[in-house]
Parts: sequence; C-alpha cells; structure tokens
Amino acid sequence: MVSSVPTDLTFSFTGLALRGGQTGPHADGWGVALYDGRFARTFLEPHPAYSSPLARFVRENPIPTPLAVAHIRKMTRGQASIQNTHPFVRVFDGRHVVFAHNGTLPHVRDRLLRFDSPIGDTDSEHAFCVILDAMRARYGARYPEDPREIGRLLFDVANDLGSDGVFNFLLADGHHLYARCGDHLSAILRSSPFGQATLVDADVTVNLGEAMQANGAAHLAIVATEPLTRGETWQKAEPGTLWVFGEGRLLSTFAPGD
Amino acid sequence: MVSSVPTDLTFSFTGLALRGGQTGPHADGWGVALYDGRFARTFLEPHPAYSSPLARFVRENPIPTPLAVAHIRKMTRGQASIQNTHPFVRVFDGRHVVFAHNGTLPHVRDRLLRFDSPIGDTDSEHAFCVILDAMRARYGARYPEDPREIGRLLFDVANDLGSDGVFNFLLADGHHLYARCGDHLSAILRSSPFGQATLVDADVTVNLGEAMQANGAAHLAIVATEPLTRGETWQKAEPGTLWVFGEGRLLSTFAPGD
Repeated sequence: MVSSVPTDLTFSFTGLALRGGQTGPHADGWGVALYDGRFARTFLEPHPAYSSPLARFVRENPIPTPLAVAHIRKMTRGQASIQNTHPFVRVFDGRHVVFAHNGTLPHVRDRLLRFDSPIGDTDSEHAFCVILDAMRARYGARYPEDPREIGRLLFDVANDLGSDGVFNFLLADGHHLYARCGDHLSAILRSSPFGQATLVDADVTVNLGEAMQANGAAHLAIVATEPLTRGETWQKAEPGTLWVFGEGRLLSTFAPGD
Repeated sequence: MVSSVPTDLTFSFTGLALRGGQTGPHADGWGVALYDGRFARTFLEPHPAYSSPLARFVRENPIPTPLAVAHIRKMTRGQASIQNTHPFVRVFDGRHVVFAHNGTLPHVRDRLLRFDSPIGDTDSEHAFCVILDAMRARYGARYPEDPREIGRLLFDVANDLGSDGVFNFLLADGHHLYARCGDHLSAILRSSPFGQATLVDADVTVNLGEAMQANGAAHLAIVATEPLTRGETWQKAEPGTLWVFGEGRLLSTFAPGD
C-alpha cells in the first residue's frame, strides 16, 4: 500500500491475514512493515496470521502510514522461523529498505554476496541481498534520490534473477514502492473522492475516505499478488513488468523489452 | 538479559516498564529486542512504556529468549519519534546487532561516517554508527567470532567517544552482550538452583527457575543502569569498564587502564 496521506491499513491487512491459514494456504508466517518517514516498524511471526494474537493487536491498534508492505508465507524453501519471515529489512543510507517475495528462486543461493548476507536461509532473503549488493556496488554508501534510477536497477536485477524461477516482489524505501511481476501481480489505483470497498475474503466493507487522513485530493495504490477487493477492476501486470509507485500514484512502468 | 537457556523476560521488563513514566521519568519511548538465534525481534514505541498497549502485549505474550536488550527513553537529544527510539538495530554479516544508550554525547554527531548512517537524529544512533563504522573499517564484511576481539574494539571506541559525555551502553549480537559503564551500570549474576527475586519498582516476586526453560545447570545475567530487584546484591561497574557476557556468565572485563 502506498498513499499520498497516512492511511489505516487495517482493511487490506484483514483480507490478507485471512489468507494466512483460513481462506488461503499461506500459514507459515506473516509480517507487516509500516513506514513512518524513513523508518519501518515491522511486526513478524512465524505462525498463521489469521489466528495470531500479534496480528489481531496490529488490526486493533492501527498505525496510520503512507507506505506499508505486508506478506503471508507459504514455505517453499527454509523453515517456518522468525529469521525466514518476510518482509526482510535492511538499513541503507539512513533509511529502512523492506522486501517481500512471492515465488521461488531455486538457484539464487549460488550467487556470491560481497556486502550483505542473509540472517535466515530462504531464497527470498538471499535474492534481497543480491539486490542490495547490486545497489551498493553501483551507488556505494549513497542511496539515489531518483526512483527511475532505482527502478531501472531493480528491473535489470529482477530480469536476471527471475529468468530462473518465479520472482514477484515488493520493495519499499520509505518514499517509493517498487512492485515486480514474475507471474502474478495486480494493482488498484484510487483517488479522492473515495467510495466503498469490499474484501474478497470476508464480508467486510470499508469507507475508504474514513481510513485516510485526507484533506483535499488524495491518492492510494494497493498492489497484491491477487486482488483483495471485489466489485472494482484491478489492473494485472504482464510478467516481467516492474511498477514504481509514489504518493499513491503509478510513477513509472518498466515493461519487458525496456 | 543474557542467559544460558531461553528465559521469559516478563519479570525484568515489568520493572523496567514501570520506570517508563510511572516510577521513573523515562516516558519518551521504550523498546525491546528479543533474540531468536541471530535474529532480534524488536518492539518499539515513542510513548510511555507503563501505559502502552504494545508493552502490555509483550508482557502478556512472553517470547522466551536467551538474549534481550530493553530501553526506556528520557529525551535529551532528538524528538520523541519512532526513528529515535532505542534499541537501534543493524544487520552485520548475517546477524542483527542491537544497541541501547543511556547518557548524552553532545558532540558525537560531528563525527564523519563512512559506511553507515543514522535514520533518526539522536546522538545515540550516531554513536552506534561510529561503532559499526569502526567494526567495518577493521573487519570488512566479516563479523569476528572472538568476543574478546569485539570487546577490545568496543572498549577503545567507547573510551574515545565517552571522553566527551556520558556513555553507558548495551550492545548485543545474538551471542554476546557487551555492557559499558560511563557513570552507572549494575549487574547481577545468578546460577541454578534459582531462588526468588523481587522488583524494586513493584510488589512483584518471581520464581526465577520457572521463568527459565532449564534442565540442569543454568546461568543468567541481568545488566541495568540501576538495580531492578531488591534483597540481592548487584555488582556496580567502575566508570570506564566494559563487561562481556555470554551464556549467562561474565566472560571478560576491560577496566580503565587496560
């Protein structure tokens, strides 16, 4: 989720959490990173989201945020442990960089790492470290300001890694959200005045205007592997596409062949 | 807290949390990092600990851990914001390194940083980055195995930074706890069989044996700016001392003049 104003994530997180072991099979862990400026508060558990006391706490004590990344895990590589729970977080030049992956990259752990190294043993965290290594090799200790610059690097690294596996991912840096489609990625873009939205996974309807701390024009983008709401049209990404979002809007698209 | 077996931190955290705005003035934020292997789960809030729903959640849903760092903040530099809340966390060679500071280093932000940079604007996080920079300059991307090696580096950097301010700190890396005394630091070392302990700040008594998942011999060390329990003798550090703890025991002491 990326928005032009601080937004209560409870609605979307409720839908996602139900897929974490109830309406979906992703019962091996969940996590959410909620940005406040360049700092991401992260809540993680290696247990099913739908029955987690901490997930309930996060829903019942919402922290409005303009940028958030959430993930529910179905194990393919690595154990169900806190070390292997998405999203993964690193500090780069005075900001948290957050990463969540859907898919499997069976050989990515053969890639040598120079600067960063994983704490756990997932292919996903290793892929994140490959991305960070590419950024540090190109930019040194300075994180670039231009999201198109970062988007281009992510697009190239993702094409390389994604050629051997399934590589849907979200990467956020406090200002922008980068969403890459390996095989499944959908987005919905909304602008004020906001109407209602209804979850696919539960009989929950929310008045989106009330969830957002907006005075005047506001924009909101939600990106997910599969659409979270019904009764509205989600845009599907072509495999190989990388979207760059900022302030609730789609800023750039890198498409296959770019 | 550092222990030879996973231990429920609730008791010590209850005493500390009461000082976060009730029995003590440290009402500008609280945080706790709980290690599971080399991964530290961190809970942070820029609000008083004693009235925090999240702090209550952490007390009511204990996560047993062999190594934990907790902090309550009284602002001296920087705002009450999540970015400025201790403990601070970085990833170094596949492990979380966690840092909490008590005191003020009025000129530390004049120090140039090469590799790392703070997210917030406290002297404390800047001092942590100076430490990490010194480690990266000496060790590159590899974190050393020998705790005496790390202890020596921390002792030297702390003497340098601490010569201009008050520099009590805790630093943990998943295996060891490094505790540095600027002006106030106390520790208690316990071994099985464990007796009872009673908090200074509340009429709470705990049977320590029940809080620890011990079969056979076990060891526990608690380090704090001021003693947390009464009816037992806490060891006070001389200013300038750095203690190295592992598996619930004091492994090394670096004293002034070393």
